[in-house]
Amino acid sequence: MSLYQQLAELFKQQIQQNTWRSGERIPSVRVTSRNHSLSAGTVLQAYQLLESQGWIVAKPQSGYFVSSALERKLVAPKDEAPVRLSINDVLFDFLNSQKNTGFVKFGSAFPDPNLFPLELLNRSLASAGRKMQPDGILDNLPPGSETLRRLIAQRYIQQGMNLTHHDIVLTSGALEALNLSLQAVTQPGDTVVVEVPTFYGALQAVERLGLKAIPIQVDVSLGLCIDQLEQAFSSHQVKACWLMSNFQNPTGASLSDVKKRQIVALAQQYNVCLIEDDVYGELYFSETKPSSLKMYDSVEQEHVLHCGSLSKSLCPGFRLGWVVTKRHNQRIQKLQLLSTLSGSAPVQQGIAHYLQNDSYDNHLRKLRKTLMQRQKWMVNTLEMLLPKEVTFQVPNGGYFLWLKLPDGLSSREVYQRLTEQNITVAGGELFSTSGSHESYLRLNTSLAEKSQLVSAIKQIGELIVELSTV
Amino acid sequence: MSLYQQLAELFKQQIQQNTWRSGERIPSVRVTSRNHSLSAGTVLQAYQLLESQGWIVAKPQSGYFVSSALERKLVAPKDEAPVRLSINDVLFDFLNSQKNTGFVKFGSAFPDPNLFPLELLNRSLASAGRKMQPDGILDNLPPGSETLRRLIAQRYIQQGMNLTHHDIVLTSGALEALNLSLQAVTQPGDTVVVEVPTFYGALQAVERLGLKAIPIQVDVSLGLCIDQLEQAFSSHQVKACWLMSNFQNPTGASLSDVKKRQIVALAQQYNVCLIEDDVYGELYFSETKPSSLKMYDSVEQEHVLHCGSLSKSLCPGFRLGWVVTKRHNQRIQKLQLLSTLSGSAPVQQGIAHYLQNDSYDNHLRKLRKTLMQRQKWMVNTLEMLLPKEVTFQVPNGGYFLWLKLPDGLSSREVYQRLTEQNITVAGGELFSTSGSHESYLRLNTSLAEKSQLVSAIKQIGELIVELSTV
Repeated sequence: MSLYQQLAELFKQQIQQNTWRSGERIPSVRVTSRNHSLSAGTVLQAYQLLESQGWIVAKPQSGYFVSSALERKLVAPKDEAPVRLSINDVLFDFLNSQKNTGFVKFGSAFPDPNLFPLELLNRSLASAGRKMQPDGILDNLPPGSETLRRLIAQRYIQQGMNLTHHDIVLTSGALEALNLSLQAVTQPGDTVVVEVPTFYGALQAVERLGLKAIPIQVDVSLGLCIDQLEQAFSSHQVKACWLMSNFQNPTGASLSDVKKRQIVALAQQYNVCLIEDDVYGELYFSETKPSSLKMYDSVEQEHVLHCGSLSKSLCPGFRLGWVVTKRHNQRIQKLQLLSTLSGSAPVQQGIAHYLQNDSYDNHLRKLRKTLMQRQKWMVNTLEMLLPKEVTFQVPNGGYFLWLKLPDGLSSREVYQRLTEQNITVAGGELFSTSGSHESYLRLNTSLAEKSQLVSAIKQIGELIVELSTV
Repeated sequence: MSLYQQLAELFKQQIQQNTWRSGERIPSVRVTSRNHSLSAGTVLQAYQLLESQGWIVAKPQSGYFVSSALERKLVAPKDEAPVRLSINDVLFDFLNSQKNTGFVKFGSAFPDPNLFPLELLNRSLASAGRKMQPDGILDNLPPGSETLRRLIAQRYIQQGMNLTHHDIVLTSGALEALNLSLQAVTQPGDTVVVEVPTFYGALQAVERLGLKAIPIQVDVSLGLCIDQLEQAFSSHQVKACWLMSNFQNPTGASLSDVKKRQIVALAQQYNVCLIEDDVYGELYFSETKPSSLKMYDSVEQEHVLHCGSLSKSLCPGFRLGWVVTKRHNQRIQKLQLLSTLSGSAPVQQGIAHYLQNDSYDNHLRKLRKTLMQRQKWMVNTLEMLLPKEVTFQVPNGGYFLWLKLPDGLSSREVYQRLTEQNITVAGGELFSTSGSHESYLRLNTSLAEKSQLVSAIKQIGELIVELSTV
């Protein structure tokens, strides 16, 4: 190893051992040059190597700073192999804990299962099944059932969007739609933008596809930071940006119409594909449905791949999702044919039957009303029973609250202790890879009001007090 | 470039331009050394480079031979990036052609849809739906419905296999099971063994995961060549081998019990994971169900990941498959959680209900009988109406015939011409990437006997005669 490489290696080890923490400034070139009796040129070379490897970032007029763990982890240097999937055991453990029966599931990613019209859905599945002709058994091959695609397209068109059912590919839930979209528009080694905090599926997909990620902060009130986004687009060759436009998971933040327009304009200017995860869009508490990025997209020069699902609004567990894209439609179909072949025929036909014959809009109206009432009750109860140091914003839709615990509190510990008490919560660590949200919790507000729920909230409050005073 | 690299480059270009074809011997080191006025050492270096890049293979005592196109394509050199997914447009076109209505679908990968108990299945879906509790809506999360896993495990146990439902992960069809299995036991750049010809999904998965593949010939009567397999295992560090034990797609070949035992023993000796695709195993015409590789696997030192499905035997289009593995079980669940999350709850519960309440075995007995009768009729009709130059073996199960057309005939042309006549066939090119099976056709023998079918076979016969005499 040459001198500059040795120096870089030394700093790398110090950063790994937390001698220099994330965000801290490392000694200037001049100081290091003196300390190590090396020329300023050699030190500069070492710093540039560290920068290219994602360990530090240079800030003009300020010096060199240790980058965040997320940046270090995801901004892999070009000359190294993409990071192999390191499956998050914490995540696996968390997802498994959701299967325990008898638990109070504040950690659940789905609305209370009792809020769905299971009986009507089942009748629709049965009716569609009775009508199914043998030849129809393969109607689910990509892009999926034409009837169902038409019905989904019609809902978008009614909302003022310009698309046809030919733009839609049906998938096994939104997760497959999002994964296929990201895969369709990137190659390993490409750079993408992700929100922080964000849905853990996004972080995992980025790793799995060998992509480098630039994290952009999500403000709990305002959503994604536009300035950071523009900076990322202008200073890197960004291929795609995966983001949630409405009731973001986990923060609940929504983008204003103005911001949505700006983001699409930026995507067009810098030729970036926006992968829009809009699975909570139907769960609004306002008068009208919020817009989506796709509404501001150009039909001729498409930049938005819009992903939707019925898992949050009609039928979790059925696994029905879709992606809306004209430009990448065939590529997504091909990728699907090679990975899962297709979605399920009886599911697609059953849901199509439901959308044709039952009132999905009536169900949605009731669902929104209930979610709003339960959120209100939950907010009141939390304010009553949690210590004042716990803070949160109240989103205008969806069913998540993003709680900031007192500084220094570890959501991992809270999670583990509560699991012992048969309560699940989603710890902040699931939503970023940098440890930047360790003192946050995501709570599901869709659970039915009952005494068990009040006790559980009390237990959370008591635990926070206990851990804060340690 | 140094001299040996220049020489290697020259040979590479000649091979690319077909100056040297697949299987031909290139000049000896001595001759090339003389021709190019280079030392024998330099020539040897060039040949070794070409060998490491997959362009040529050395055969002891014989010299250097141009490797097959498949080897060239898939055995990428270690220092090059893995080949990016180049989606096969021919395959996409073929799969789409299966959706045309009114076509005679000799190309179909599925049995005649009329052979499935759709009405009973639908009733089961409805009954299971009625019984479904709201909390059960997420029972499908990996590893999938416990009831269904139990029922599947019981069938295996009855067949004499040593496993429990804890070893099973339910997936969206066998294709997801196979893809997840391959992903679970390999890393990009690893070497795997695939059969040739083989199911196109296997070829695509190998490319998609950035793996290097060693092709092993499948004999239409005897199945996979054991000698080639052992040679591959002993001369390369092979991580996995994807193969079909019974009624292989497309050849219909089955491995004898002796061969199955040998293959598992080899896998144990060389520590290779066998990814067993056994989706046709239930469709046997003999007295008893053929064994699987998994039956000969060691429980303590597992080497077989066994993949199954109901798409060929009970319900195509429902997308239900599974993988049986103890050792890699959790890893597969994790990979699934990140890609499609899970299979569909109503599908899993409906099928479980069917398996509990209706007689799957009765259905299978009828199905096998019908498939056998139809195969017999089809074989007779083909022998009557096709020119004698077309040859094929008659498998003792499944529903495929693998037709060898007269030499020089292109299955691509046959496919295209027949599509114009509303007949689909599966051309040999879909089942290898080397062009080694261009004069083969795979025909589906499960279609119901009727006049339309006779006409279609006549048309195929006439076309072959026409193209042979050109």
